[in-house]
Amino acid sequence: MGLSADFFDWLKSKQELVNRALEFYVPYLDGQARRLFEAMHYSLMSGGKRLRPILVMAGAEAAGGKPEDVLPAACAIECIHTYSLIHDDLPAMDDDDLRRGKPTCHKAFDEATAILAGDGLLTHAFRLLAHEELADKFPQENLLEGIRLVAEAAGLYGMVAGQMADLLAEGRNVTAEELAFIHRHKTAALIRASVLLGATLVGTGKKEKEALSSYGWNIGHAFQIIDDILDLTADEKTLGKPIGSDLKKKKATYPALFGLEASRAKARSLLEEALSSIAILGDKAKTLADIAYYVLERKL
Amino acid sequence: MGLSADFFDWLKSKQELVNRALEFYVPYLDGQARRLFEAMHYSLMSGGKRLRPILVMAGAEAAGGKPEDVLPAACAIECIHTYSLIHDDLPAMDDDDLRRGKPTCHKAFDEATAILAGDGLLTHAFRLLAHEELADKFPQENLLEGIRLVAEAAGLYGMVAGQMADLLAEGRNVTAEELAFIHRHKTAALIRASVLLGATLVGTGKKEKEALSSYGWNIGHAFQIIDDILDLTADEKTLGKPIGSDLKKKKATYPALFGLEASRAKARSLLEEALSSIAILGDKAKTLADIAYYVLERKL
Repeated sequence: MGLSADFFDWLKSKQELVNRALEFYVPYLDGQARRLFEAMHYSLMSGGKRLRPILVMAGAEAAGGKPEDVLPAACAIECIHTYSLIHDDLPAMDDDDLRRGKPTCHKAFDEATAILAGDGLLTHAFRLLAHEELADKFPQENLLEGIRLVAEAAGLYGMVAGQMADLLAEGRNVTAEELAFIHRHKTAALIRASVLLGATLVGTGKKEKEALSSYGWNIGHAFQIIDDILDLTADEKTLGKPIGSDLKKKKATYPALFGLEASRAKARSLLEEALSSIAILGDKAKTLADIAYYVLERKL
Repeated sequence: MGLSADFFDWLKSKQELVNRALEFYVPYLDGQARRLFEAMHYSLMSGGKRLRPILVMAGAEAAGGKPEDVLPAACAIECIHTYSLIHDDLPAMDDDDLRRGKPTCHKAFDEATAILAGDGLLTHAFRLLAHEELADKFPQENLLEGIRLVAEAAGLYGMVAGQMADLLAEGRNVTAEELAFIHRHKTAALIRASVLLGATLVGTGKKEKEALSSYGWNIGHAFQIIDDILDLTADEKTLGKPIGSDLKKKKATYPALFGLEASRAKARSLLEEALSSIAILGDKAKTLADIAYYVLERKL
């Protein structure tokens, strides 16, 4: 199956919705700290795919809720994703100068401002997850469950631990098991948490959550494998950053360990897994199925 | 009035309680990201005064609650405080090599690890603020209110904005108004939030919250002024870091703007303000009064 033109129209409309919501839910304060807000918005509005916030909305929809109702939570996840890119790009970390065809935050501003912009976005994410609008629409225990879920996935049980493991793996040979740890923590944990967050806020059954959790792990892993493939094969202008940078940094990647063909096959099989996990959700999971194809077929 | 030996016994027992709780509530995971946990615990357990977590407990007590019941929240605040020190010490920020007589996190480990240790502590703080033990003891809306309070005080309406303003003020002359903005955001916001957090979790009236809020602002400002005075006058060995570093970095400080004597007088008058704010709370605020004196009289 390929993706219909309808899906891309839907995707574009949701990306625009997220962009407007980010302008609304992330403050831009004038005054002595204005530079902080400039840097935050510079990175937030630099043309991301908005995959994670869209997954929050699709997760809410799969649980029978309205995508618009979870917008503060969707923005929270994009704040966390953006902070992670800003900090990862720092000289002490991946030392990248370009991101989506534009200078990275510390290049456009400076290192101190970039560190603070990341810290500010991460902190604000939790302000948004506890937002009064969410508390008005959903049971308060669902909000608390969502905060726990995101804090674990973004922090010590997920992304931050994954980034540490990724840095420690640079320049040495890793086993398939070590690579799986890195992918699961660095990338898949937050993608899984995005889908689950939407459904958790709306509220859904244990079996449905398990289905969405499995879907999230699988597309999260597929996403990282495709990312690693694109780093080797994409058109530099489309990707907006230099090609082959993983190789240059001796990063642990799926293609480096197993080759390009095996990597493509692995991503396809993860997609199949993801689709079969959500079969029990029926029509409500149509959007999630489309997003899974999109993750596999994306070119940037 | 001076502080009694009883107060120092009480303080020591509470510091030990916080230290044990931090070991318990902040995980130390083995495996591929072990270095992250080593760095976090290195900085967390390097002998801080634990003023902020103790204020969380004293705030709970002032609202009629039990200090022990808010321990996960107290630890969350110490995680946030520690993350802010780790990031502030980075070469791109204040570039400090020593903290409490020990190498700073990026000196003991490396810059990337220090950035991630800070990110991990900040994220984990919100995991702790949504902790199941708090949800079992207090109304869930109180937890959500606490999360909002802390996210604002630590982030864009407080500490992160204050740190940005502080960096931008380096090397130039600031007005008294600009300095007040920096102190309020960089230091006082989180100290105020600490006291209020304890009382918010337990639950208390609007007037009581206003009293605690005013107390928090005042001791927060006094704390920063004393900090700036100690940077000029303290014994290097007691302070655990080089003396005069604010001067060397051309930091905006109260003594630099108004002189030492006026600074001491200002700190004393803030203490008086703090004490008068909590007068309406009666005996329940005895501990808070002692802490206010302690803030004024501390030597490190």
